[in-house]
Amino acid sequence: MAHLGATISHLAPGEVDLTMPFAAHLTQQHGFFHAGATTSLADSAAGYAALSLFPAGTGVLSTEFKFNLLNPGRGRALVARGRVIKPGRTLTVCRADVFGLDEAGEVHVATGLVSLICLAGITD
Amino acid sequence: MAHLGATISHLAPGEVDLTMPFAAHLTQQHGFFHAGATTSLADSAAGYAALSLFPAGTGVLSTEFKFNLLNPGRGRALVARGRVIKPGRTLTVCRADVFGLDEAGEVHVATGLVSLICLAGITD
Amino acid sequence: MAHLGATISHLAPGEVDLTMPFAAHLTQQHGFFHAGATTSLADSAAGYAALSLFPAGTGVLSTEFKFNLLNPGRGRALVARGRVIKPGRTLTVCRADVFGLDEAGEVHVATGLVSLICLAGITD
Amino acid sequence: MAHLGATISHLAPGEVDLTMPFAAHLTQQHGFFHAGATTSLADSAAGYAALSLFPAGTGVLSTEFKFNLLNPGRGRALVARGRVIKPGRTLTVCRADVFGLDEAGEVHVATGLVSLICLAGITD
Repeated sequence: MAHLGATISHLAPGEVDLTMPFAAHLTQQHGFFHAGATTSLADSAAGYAALSLFPAGTGVLSTEFKFNLLNPGRGRALVARGRVIKPGRTLTVCRADVFGLDEAGEVHVATGLVSLICLAGITD
Repeated sequence: MAHLGATISHLAPGEVDLTMPFAAHLTQQHGFFHAGATTSLADSAAGYAALSLFPAGTGVLSTEFKFNLLNPGRGRALVARGRVIKPGRTLTVCRADVFGLDEAGEVHVATGLVSLICLAGITD
Repeated sequence: MAHLGATISHLAPGEVDLTMPFAAHLTQQHGFFHAGATTSLADSAAGYAALSLFPAGTGVLSTEFKFNLLNPGRGRALVARGRVIKPGRTLTVCRADVFGLDEAGEVHVATGLVSLICLAGITD
Repeated sequence: MAHLGATISHLAPGEVDLTMPFAAHLTQQHGFFHAGATTSLADSAAGYAALSLFPAGTGVLSTEFKFNLLNPGRGRALVARGRVIKPGRTLTVCRADVFGLDEAGEVHVATGLVSLICLAGITD
């Protein structure tokens, strides 16, 4: 999170948005946000969304994710929206969508699904 | 579609719902809809949703899909909702969600993402 | 399995192959094996591969899968090869590959990854 | 690549390995390689593997990927192995596996599938 320069811009039970301003070290050769930075942000948003529903004293770990990269990651910032689709005692499934923000509005950059496991005895 | 006994229950540009009534040959050993039948229905709904935006005289083919199985597939019928997230000249990306319908309402059975390719010279 | 007409053609710890002969009710409009039948077979092969490593008295459930459809499903039979990549107490991850068999040899029809959960008190 | 500090450690038609030495800025809160860095490396290895089979003067773009995270990303370095499973004029499908290297040998950190599109008129 520190490395990505991301901050929480929305927080509700089962819902977390993370916003990441444009920065040169997050871009690839054509000047767009790198797919790795984009999907790291999305994975983190999903993780916080899941964690928001977990009991105190537990941690979260992604076990798998899948992303479709829809449009180049451009704009002054990216916002990743993590939403819990199915909370579970062991496994939680989240959707994560990433949008690029600029003057013209939002562009849908990536959409994905993330499975997360609740870990006792670890605190994130 | 014939084999699954499914019919179109909603149709709009980029949106197709398919409904599949319960049938014994679609179930697995515990009496629930089989995951294969569930995701076939979802894949078909995504395919029709994509096709609804394609030019005349083209066909559709799924190139990949990913599904998270959220709850057992139970109820008097399943409905699969295919929605185009990103239309494209070559590749189209759809979301597909499957719900089980019974007296108590809807249960979210599966959620997934499907990539589809537009094929010239084939008619589905 | 009965519905697909599949039989086990290879069995070793963490490895199961299923073979499904061509049958008209498994095909789509162009005469190829339907993607749904193809991936059901693959999911089943992964499930049996995982189950081969589970303790007695437990069952198996796929929690998610992702398949890339590589070539049309043609030939006199399909063989699905499920292989455990990572066994686990809670979650097991398998690879599953499907090949079409004909006179000319094997064609790679689909490749995928399947996550499976071990369920106590259920017997498959 | 520069940001990840990765170098090519194997190159053959359809096969690329990338090696990324341990670095503090690539780790998460528990000292392991971050899942984002791990899967970025894997996605890059898949991209180079695909590119190795493309015609001169074309570029490569991932359209989707899916990763299962198998073990914590630990060791003195990670190696990502990208392998073309199905080359195509439009779409190419690669497998990508990541291993952690330490004294005890290799640990399987992640496995995934990546779809890539060949783009004319762009040079990577």
